[in-house]
Amino acid sequence: MIRRALGVCYYPEHWPESQWPEDAARMATAGLTWVRIGEFAWSRLEPTPGDLRLDWLDRAIATLGNAGLRVVLGTPTATPPRWMLDRHPDMLAWDRDGRPRGFGSRRHYDFSHAGYRAECARITRILAERYGANPHVAAWQTDNEYACHDTVLSYSPVAAAAFRQWLAARHGTVEALNEAWGNVFWSMEYNSFDQIGLPNLTVTEANPAHWLDFRRFSSDQVVAFNRVQTEILRAHTSAPLIHNYMGRITEFDHFATGADLDVASWDNYPLGFLEDRSDEGEAWKAAFQRQGDPDFQAFHHDLYRAVGRGRWWVMEQQPGPVNWAPYNPAPLPGMVRLWTWEAFAHGAEAVCYFRWRQAPFAQEAMHAGLLTPDSRDAPGLAEAAQVARELGNRPEVESFAAAKVGLVFDYASAWAWATQPQGRDFDYFRLVFAAYRGLRQAGLDIDILPPDTADLAPYALVVAPGVAAWTPVFRAALARFEGRALLGPRSGAKTEHMSIPAAMPPDLPALATRVARVESLRPGGAIPLTGGGAFHIWREITDGASEVVETTADGEAAVRHAGNLTYLAGWPDGPAMRRLMRAAAAEAGLPTLDLPDGLRRRSTPAETFWFNYAAHPVPLAAPAGDPTLPAELAPAGVHRVVKG
Amino acid sequence: MIRRALGVCYYPEHWPESQWPEDAARMATAGLTWVRIGEFAWSRLEPTPGDLRLDWLDRAIATLGNAGLRVVLGTPTATPPRWMLDRHPDMLAWDRDGRPRGFGSRRHYDFSHAGYRAECARITRILAERYGANPHVAAWQTDNEYACHDTVLSYSPVAAAAFRQWLAARHGTVEALNEAWGNVFWSMEYNSFDQIGLPNLTVTEANPAHWLDFRRFSSDQVVAFNRVQTEILRAHTSAPLIHNYMGRITEFDHFATGADLDVASWDNYPLGFLEDRSDEGEAWKAAFQRQGDPDFQAFHHDLYRAVGRGRWWVMEQQPGPVNWAPYNPAPLPGMVRLWTWEAFAHGAEAVCYFRWRQAPFAQEAMHAGLLTPDSRDAPGLAEAAQVARELGNRPEVESFAAAKVGLVFDYASAWAWATQPQGRDFDYFRLVFAAYRGLRQAGLDIDILPPDTADLAPYALVVAPGVAAWTPVFRAALARFEGRALLGPRSGAKTEHMSIPAAMPPDLPALATRVARVESLRPGGAIPLTGGGAFHIWREITDGASEVVETTADGEAAVRHAGNLTYLAGWPDGPAMRRLMRAAAAEAGLPTLDLPDGLRRRSTPAETFWFNYAAHPVPLAAPAGDPTLPAELAPAGVHRVVKG
Amino acid sequence: MIRRALGVCYYPEHWPESQWPEDAARMATAGLTWVRIGEFAWSRLEPTPGDLRLDWLDRAIATLGNAGLRVVLGTPTATPPRWMLDRHPDMLAWDRDGRPRGFGSRRHYDFSHAGYRAECARITRILAERYGANPHVAAWQTDNEYACHDTVLSYSPVAAAAFRQWLAARHGTVEALNEAWGNVFWSMEYNSFDQIGLPNLTVTEANPAHWLDFRRFSSDQVVAFNRVQTEILRAHTSAPLIHNYMGRITEFDHFATGADLDVASWDNYPLGFLEDRSDEGEAWKAAFQRQGDPDFQAFHHDLYRAVGRGRWWVMEQQPGPVNWAPYNPAPLPGMVRLWTWEAFAHGAEAVCYFRWRQAPFAQEAMHAGLLTPDSRDAPGLAEAAQVARELGNRPEVESFAAAKVGLVFDYASAWAWATQPQGRDFDYFRLVFAAYRGLRQAGLDIDILPPDTADLAPYALVVAPGVAAWTPVFRAALARFEGRALLGPRSGAKTEHMSIPAAMPPDLPALATRVARVESLRPGGAIPLTGGGAFHIWREITDGASEVVETTADGEAAVRHAGNLTYLAGWPDGPAMRRLMRAAAAEAGLPTLDLPDGLRRRSTPAETFWFNYAAHPVPLAAPAGDPTLPAELAPAGVHRVVKG
Repeated sequence: MIRRALGVCYYPEHWPESQWPEDAARMATAGLTWVRIGEFAWSRLEPTPGDLRLDWLDRAIATLGNAGLRVVLGTPTATPPRWMLDRHPDMLAWDRDGRPRGFGSRRHYDFSHAGYRAECARITRILAERYGANPHVAAWQTDNEYACHDTVLSYSPVAAAAFRQWLAARHGTVEALNEAWGNVFWSMEYNSFDQIGLPNLTVTEANPAHWLDFRRFSSDQVVAFNRVQTEILRAHTSAPLIHNYMGRITEFDHFATGADLDVASWDNYPLGFLEDRSDEGEAWKAAFQRQGDPDFQAFHHDLYRAVGRGRWWVMEQQPGPVNWAPYNPAPLPGMVRLWTWEAFAHGAEAVCYFRWRQAPFAQEAMHAGLLTPDSRDAPGLAEAAQVARELGNRPEVESFAAAKVGLVFDYASAWAWATQPQGRDFDYFRLVFAAYRGLRQAGLDIDILPPDTADLAPYALVVAPGVAAWTPVFRAALARFEGRALLGPRSGAKTEHMSIPAAMPPDLPALATRVARVESLRPGGAIPLTGGGAFHIWREITDGASEVVETTADGEAAVRHAGNLTYLAGWPDGPAMRRLMRAAAAEAGLPTLDLPDGLRRRSTPAETFWFNYAAHPVPLAAPAGDPTLPAELAPAGVHRVVKG
Repeated sequence: MIRRALGVCYYPEHWPESQWPEDAARMATAGLTWVRIGEFAWSRLEPTPGDLRLDWLDRAIATLGNAGLRVVLGTPTATPPRWMLDRHPDMLAWDRDGRPRGFGSRRHYDFSHAGYRAECARITRILAERYGANPHVAAWQTDNEYACHDTVLSYSPVAAAAFRQWLAARHGTVEALNEAWGNVFWSMEYNSFDQIGLPNLTVTEANPAHWLDFRRFSSDQVVAFNRVQTEILRAHTSAPLIHNYMGRITEFDHFATGADLDVASWDNYPLGFLEDRSDEGEAWKAAFQRQGDPDFQAFHHDLYRAVGRGRWWVMEQQPGPVNWAPYNPAPLPGMVRLWTWEAFAHGAEAVCYFRWRQAPFAQEAMHAGLLTPDSRDAPGLAEAAQVARELGNRPEVESFAAAKVGLVFDYASAWAWATQPQGRDFDYFRLVFAAYRGLRQAGLDIDILPPDTADLAPYALVVAPGVAAWTPVFRAALARFEGRALLGPRSGAKTEHMSIPAAMPPDLPALATRVARVESLRPGGAIPLTGGGAFHIWREITDGASEVVETTADGEAAVRHAGNLTYLAGWPDGPAMRRLMRAAAAEAGLPTLDLPDGLRRRSTPAETFWFNYAAHPVPLAAPAGDPTLPAELAPAGVHRVVKG
Repeated sequence: MIRRALGVCYYPEHWPESQWPEDAARMATAGLTWVRIGEFAWSRLEPTPGDLRLDWLDRAIATLGNAGLRVVLGTPTATPPRWMLDRHPDMLAWDRDGRPRGFGSRRHYDFSHAGYRAECARITRILAERYGANPHVAAWQTDNEYACHDTVLSYSPVAAAAFRQWLAARHGTVEALNEAWGNVFWSMEYNSFDQIGLPNLTVTEANPAHWLDFRRFSSDQVVAFNRVQTEILRAHTSAPLIHNYMGRITEFDHFATGADLDVASWDNYPLGFLEDRSDEGEAWKAAFQRQGDPDFQAFHHDLYRAVGRGRWWVMEQQPGPVNWAPYNPAPLPGMVRLWTWEAFAHGAEAVCYFRWRQAPFAQEAMHAGLLTPDSRDAPGLAEAAQVARELGNRPEVESFAAAKVGLVFDYASAWAWATQPQGRDFDYFRLVFAAYRGLRQAGLDIDILPPDTADLAPYALVVAPGVAAWTPVFRAALARFEGRALLGPRSGAKTEHMSIPAAMPPDLPALATRVARVESLRPGGAIPLTGGGAFHIWREITDGASEVVETTADGEAAVRHAGNLTYLAGWPDGPAMRRLMRAAAAEAGLPTLDLPDGLRRRSTPAETFWFNYAAHPVPLAAPAGDPTLPAELAPAGVHRVVKG
């Protein structure tokens, strides 16, 4: 059973204490039940080293809790105070150009710095000991937005030293490393681990195996950093442990940090992400400038549901214009409500708006809140309150069964293809997201699957494009799988060391397919498919005993079948992806729709939701094939059907 | 009374002494009366430390003076010789990436370096003592083009140390600084001034208040640097002191340096600036590629007239193709004359061409002069001589009364919005210049006003878009003002510390308007106005008791009236700006025209000028509404009507 | 007599020794006769300092040689092992931003480092002593791809010290240097050579004479580096010495290195070069994406034939998709054969494919070979074998006589115009290549001439655009020349020190022409020619006694004649270049064609070749004016006519 709730991010340290009670009362009145605090407050908790000032936090928690709110308490480790640098002058991460990334904003630390890790353990322990059993503190957040501002990969001497230790542990001997990386190429062989540097600032590209190990190491450092805090917190609290992830971040393995936490959460800024992190062109961005991409939020909801093993939140929800994208328009009226309901539709336990009151100062002074700086209601507040009313006294919903479609998302593949795209436009997230959009356009519900998913039995269709190297667990799961699996393009194309597998891609005997040649395609170089649409960005020339079920206009195999497995020998463009995903679902026995651009459906055993992301009304009953539905859905419209 | 004169920049040290007399005679024959020399000659004045060689300069001044020319003598501080770096190895400015900006071109010094300032004082005193009373030296120039090549902001340790001292003087205590900057945000609080660094190379954006103080400090350093020289010169000469500014430079407060000087001047390169510093698109650049933007020169003429408190020159006038823009075409025949007359029309006392003879060597070998390298006439010389003939024996004109339109230009606002544009296209200069163009298209004459203008009484219309923070002086002037004032968008949006004012923008009670929300707009996201045109780049959602006199297509207030004040709640595109400026002038009782793109008018009590910037003839009598004028004006045409 | 042969690049160190015999046998079976090895194998030849392991190389050479193959042995100096950096920590080149370019890929050395040069001499001597008389080692390659990855210009302290020595040797006294560079400008005068730094990281552009000397020095360092190896090799072997150059590399004077070698070779990657190094627009790139630019390969064939004084190879020929261009499509079937035949048509003695078997690991794992990683035939192998069959038992062809058209290519001019383009689009290679394309479109055969060509007698037409400074030898040759010479634009525009010549450009009295003014043109600023087409990018205003034979639409001279000399006063666009080159050829008495885009001809005394670079059939008999030819040529088609 999921109990849906709303919340808000609040910074008591930004406001006079006298204002706290009124703020708390207004939150409760608006129907909010969660309030996240503390995650940037280190300089107020410990103004100088060892001088702890927790009394104000005691009072803030009490004030909020006494108003009926449940507190999420954040560890303040994303913002070490300035004095920390005096104690640990080498704690800064370095950028790819070899420059320290200095104090003056946030996330100014290197994940590999042992001294700073110890400081984080110290402050976490202090907070855990004091608030671990506090009845108002009902959840904990570790740090804040790992990886934000490109902070996973550090090129510092500290990182280099840690990398060498990591390599020694991984490879055992330098000879083994030379062999694994293929260092005989270009005489790159090392005589000892001490000689190994970081892969930046080389004359031309470094060995892709060097990069892959460096990315793997960097991800492991995030996991280890987070674990320092979770181990301490677990010893002092039974409240759930959460981290707030971001959108389209692939630099570390979220499944790995997720394993140490109880709930995954993410910070959902649909308009900022559309402007800043979308591969779509200007026309698409203009069409959705005030609504956000119709699939981007849903994708992350499904992803973090997997990262949280079913439990997930939106920790920060955009409530109005943000300050950090290239352009920052206001949401279309109704979108704050729509975004909130879409999160619930995908299983969120809580949606917390960022932030309560817009700050008049510092870096986020132009970031909207639920209140304006002069404490009046901002437009987002009314929409939040509307959702609270709509939840009413029935905020519970049944926990979800699995969807019928599983889509594999593998962080290590993102690292592999970032290292070796082989064509300017090849990006792993883009590929998986294109498949996700195709499935959503067909009206399907999707589970995101980690790359070591052991049990595929719940699924009728499993889709796994671009998985660089199969995990043994997934190979075994596929062998047992009786549904339809759509694999490729570029799946199984690498070993764990970025080599081409001895058996040649896709390196899966059951596919009876061999990738003989690959090519990346320039804009204007798309290759039409006989069934409609085209391959763009990437295509492969294949051979093997599998059945060719569709070809390209130049006569090569585009889609191959071998039993219940399908191999896709290229990157379908939008029309082709839409068609091929519908076809795969049909082969898997799943009914599909063909939804227009703005309209999306999310269906669970308990409810069906319809969302309109378009800025104009869209027809509903007709594309849904359901005459009981309204004929059309208004812009920013949400239509919920409670089943049974 | 202004006495109009022509002049030229000359480098006697570049040529054999035997050539000086002929050069001087040709200058005089061409009708030139001013000659600027010396500003890059330090290595010839002092080839090694203390070894002064001023005899050649004595003779150069005598030769020029004896030919009837009046000399502007420049201090050579923009080009310290190489040996200076041996004496002051840390005198270089550092770029934003943290690298010293080395010797080998010019402007290689940090404004904050005390040792170099002392050297500048020394050489200035030497020159002042020797030439302060020289009858041929009729004006002085300090340094050369402050800020050129992005040299105001330095990120050196020397700058950092000076910045800390400046902050201590400004804020008194570090607690006050923390409060002013809002450093509680992200735990950015400092324990002492010693901990404060420069705002570059942070992980993500630094605190905007940090940036604003750094920009304010950097401007102050330029002012202090310049003052070292003016104080010495004043003690030895009664000739006017001048600096030559550049186009579209906002990194320091020109009004502040101007206060220490007698005359403002600027270096006017219409074609280079069009290619290099224009926000307009390719079609506009192509249309004016050989003429320059029709408003850019006039804007700076009016700006520097304000900076010089009425007295200003063009110290360097483009005479042919330059060498430094992305593309360097030749001017349309007649444009050198047109540019010269337009400067006079706006009140210039002198227009000096850069340079006499094109140098065959070094960085500016491809920069045209009035002579070609082989000493033949270049095309610009004939046009200069034509103006000299046209000036004839009546070069005097009455000094100007104020115009009827005042347009506020505030350097601090440029710093504020460069720090926090909130949208990729928001630029302060671009906004003010768009308003200026709208006013010019209406045939209006404009005075640029500093942001602390105390007396607005001369004006029928005052326009002040994008003024980040009102000065107390301007608030008081507005309160007394009886004309029409057009304020906004984004005016009064900040405190002096980059915070949102407690009263909310536009922070002016008489406007009876509150900006509740702002948004930046993407290309393609313009919002139509009911009266025609649209808001692009920026728009605001406002409330308050003021009267809504125009709305956007989506129903929000676009223009509000409160008594004699108008608030503009967005950034008008070209058509809207043209319409709104005409409307504001009409409300202020000013008659307007609606001029085609190439045609511009400048009118003073004594004269009216018509200029054609188009590459084709434009109609004149019809748009001017004056049948006594010629029917049309030729390309590069100048039509002068002397009144009374 | 040229004996045409095929070959391949092979890396025995990448594969188990047990596989060598089969590989060798398959090479021989495919008709390959040359095999290049060893050039990246230093870490296997000397795993730790002084520990030489040459036995495997002995066996590899024996295996290959015994299979009937002839070995090209490379010195491994492009890839110093990691231990080399422990011995010479300062051996790395520095980039323009002042950062060392580290270990981890290749070419990580500074040409100026004396210690590394000594190491190169040592390993070269070891190899020369052991294999200089080996009967299987039939040619030697020095290093690999000098300049690749932008490695000629280094901004290291080591380079700076060497530059100062070079300057002292060149200029004698610092006073002479100051005079030559024009350092009086901006007070840039030096007091001693010790004060001179490198021209990077200056505040604004450094003196162009400073840059030109730095580029000249940098080129000289490559020549000196190469000579260390050639001198040692010559003492031990009589086999020809070769270096493998790259495409569109102008950073060093290939004629100068060529003088120390016996054969020039280059690495020919038509598809990678089209994507990465072409000035053409997207439509052109799309049209030729699988074939390569129709003239780029031919240009370099002709260039390296000149560099090799008649003897040249393709050392690396693209056999399929590469891995390093922005997009990496596969070649159109037949193109590997076409490229090979085109090399032979231009006089290649050998065409070696890169590489035998695609490596499954490291940086080039995605680079195709003649075999796939699993040792099956890749498509390129069949095309190579087809050429081998076509060569059959008649691989000999007569050595070439000179062509009738000579086109000057001058590396120093590339340096001059890179230093001072005066307009964004002015690039020397682009200019010369545009002329070359115009000549090829006319069906002409071309010899590339070095800028100090002493004898122009073989040519009916000599074309020399953009030659910055005439050499005395070329001046003399021109004076004796009785054919037609087409000079300009921008030829003779500089002295050797980047000054404007005292006589003014084009600095050639016989031309009776003076360039009075130049201008660079923006896109959209092209100036039509009365004869058709236009000048774009660049045009000049000229005067003088020469005859004006064509003008621009704005009435300036476009083409001038003075006796047998023609001066072109601008940069013709595509249509104008095609027309003007045909006209010049006609004036020189040479018959011409007007070939469509994909069709090209190469004609020698012994053979005429027709090539179709288009992706569709092109008419052949009609444009060739020869009814005996086939009516059309298929895509990737090669039609050879053996004469007599």
